[in-house]
Amino acid sequence: MRATPAVVMGHGGGGAMSAELVEHLFLPAYGSAAAAELGDSAVLTVGDGTRLAFSTDSFVVKPMFFPGGSIGDLAVNGTVNDLAMSGATPLFMSSAFILQEGTALTDLGRIAQDMGAAARAAGVRLVTGDTKVVDSGSGDGVYINTSGIGVIPAGVDIGPRRAAPGDAVLISGDIGVHGVAVMSCRDGLGFGTTVESDTAALHGLVAAMLATGADVHVLRDPTRGGVAASLNEIATASRVGVELIERDLPVPDTVRDACSLLGLDPLQVANEGKLIAIVPADSADRVLAALTEHPLGRGARRIGTCVTGHPGMVVARTGLGGTRVVGLPVGEQLPRIC
Amino acid sequence: MRATPAVVMGHGGGGAMSAELVEHLFLPAYGSAAAAELGDSAVLTVGDGTRLAFSTDSFVVKPMFFPGGSIGDLAVNGTVNDLAMSGATPLFMSSAFILQEGTALTDLGRIAQDMGAAARAAGVRLVTGDTKVVDSGSGDGVYINTSGIGVIPAGVDIGPRRAAPGDAVLISGDIGVHGVAVMSCRDGLGFGTTVESDTAALHGLVAAMLATGADVHVLRDPTRGGVAASLNEIATASRVGVELIERDLPVPDTVRDACSLLGLDPLQVANEGKLIAIVPADSADRVLAALTEHPLGRGARRIGTCVTGHPGMVVARTGLGGTRVVGLPVGEQLPRIC
Repeated sequence: MRATPAVVMGHGGGGAMSAELVEHLFLPAYGSAAAAELGDSAVLTVGDGTRLAFSTDSFVVKPMFFPGGSIGDLAVNGTVNDLAMSGATPLFMSSAFILQEGTALTDLGRIAQDMGAAARAAGVRLVTGDTKVVDSGSGDGVYINTSGIGVIPAGVDIGPRRAAPGDAVLISGDIGVHGVAVMSCRDGLGFGTTVESDTAALHGLVAAMLATGADVHVLRDPTRGGVAASLNEIATASRVGVELIERDLPVPDTVRDACSLLGLDPLQVANEGKLIAIVPADSADRVLAALTEHPLGRGARRIGTCVTGHPGMVVARTGLGGTRVVGLPVGEQLPRIC
Repeated sequence: MRATPAVVMGHGGGGAMSAELVEHLFLPAYGSAAAAELGDSAVLTVGDGTRLAFSTDSFVVKPMFFPGGSIGDLAVNGTVNDLAMSGATPLFMSSAFILQEGTALTDLGRIAQDMGAAARAAGVRLVTGDTKVVDSGSGDGVYINTSGIGVIPAGVDIGPRRAAPGDAVLISGDIGVHGVAVMSCRDGLGFGTTVESDTAALHGLVAAMLATGADVHVLRDPTRGGVAASLNEIATASRVGVELIERDLPVPDTVRDACSLLGLDPLQVANEGKLIAIVPADSADRVLAALTEHPLGRGARRIGTCVTGHPGMVVARTGLGGTRVVGLPVGEQLPRIC
């Protein structure tokens, strides 16, 4: 007898299984009601041609408080960043809570305060909300959904299909920090040094890049599935190859050590305050300069190039002169990281 | 020793405890980042003055499938209705899932199909999404958040503060049906006759009312907390009293019987396909005619009047010639009804 196919943790990992769920279950079921892509954010035109970015994300991170932040910070910054990656100025946000009966009101209050502070810092207004409660045993503390609306300035055209051969691939700083920070405070895992989450709102960094006048082709915040998942999606959508130079990847020693211990590739570990920018080669220096001048982009650097070879595939040149394929993570390596 | 104050089921009931959580926890914590009200939907102005309605709702109904519908129908229709109650034409929707590990993919597929069908019927597009998975034991099947964006036509001004003394209070049909339908399929509860949920998208009914040219003051879909909660909120926001005529309330026998059995007031039981309309007395007949001509408003009738007396309070004239106060439900009488 064959078991009934069921949801597994990997369906929520942001990798290949998540993509399959969208392609083989959600899109066929939604039919003509669905947009062609159900991506991290949608671009909508309303009224006189105003272009809106619209995005949604649910947060189930465990534990709810971790070094450097909380589920409240993530819930605001995550949606701000999804909007910012289409070049939008984030303006409005909803907050919807699913609370487990028995959750301490002091914890909920701390989380809501973190959300308020993050929203003020990002200049977005929390305008509508909802609260549901599930019985004890049917939930796990606090789950938060935020959805956001931003306005895309005229002339800005940023999207995952725009990467072109020759483009430079930039990263705004150290990778893998958020994932390691959350893992470090789970049961029995401590890596000696405290790693703090990099959770941050990135729309200011995006504005600094756009102010250079460069034609930014693609932006992406590499959250679940890490840099590997984001670059694979971009390579597929743009039909280009991506070639990374492994020694140029900014991986802090603490992240490298933790990844060794857990058998993880830092390229597949979640970030919550970093962005990938893909820009024409001749504007790479200008954009890098703008990034490094911003407090959230001090560690920015170029990590690779888009190429005509191996379209849809990401490879890394290793220190030994060889190359290795950087795959889309299949399932979930770090469950409930955001 | 005093117990730590904690979340209880009543915080999710849509009544007095839900309102307290918003007023005493969320609004102070959000501070200046929050809109003055965190209502069911917000009205936002973008671009050249286009007015958007923006709404969010999470759905945790148990069981996920019930007579007349599923969590998928509710998730689409609920957000469509929140938008429609500000007079907006619903256009775009997000769908975010929190799935429990082990949920059958066939169940998830049925739910997604229901969402697609409901979205097509309502003319909204599902444009962006998210999926998270929580470990078995940390969730309960499928939780869905939908957020929606609609455009409010020029000249339309509908809101909970606009009820005025003398206005007529209309209901579009039988009350209490959804709540009883969900309760009827819970463990051990059967009421003899099958009651089907009234889940439906109401924006067409709103359009029919607006087409009469009447100056519709307030619209509300009385979901959690029922007609009682909606009218209490309106009475408070508009500083009017509301006087209902009890014998005019359309309560089907099946709902009345089930409520007797469970000790519930039908006025406090959730609806998912009904609306309350508050309109100037001199347009009440015209609006009622438009409602009753529409398939979703055949059972429409006038149930009361806004008055200058007892502002903020809802009373019902009983069959015996007395009056009783129709209170805002305190906690949650029917948990996880939507």
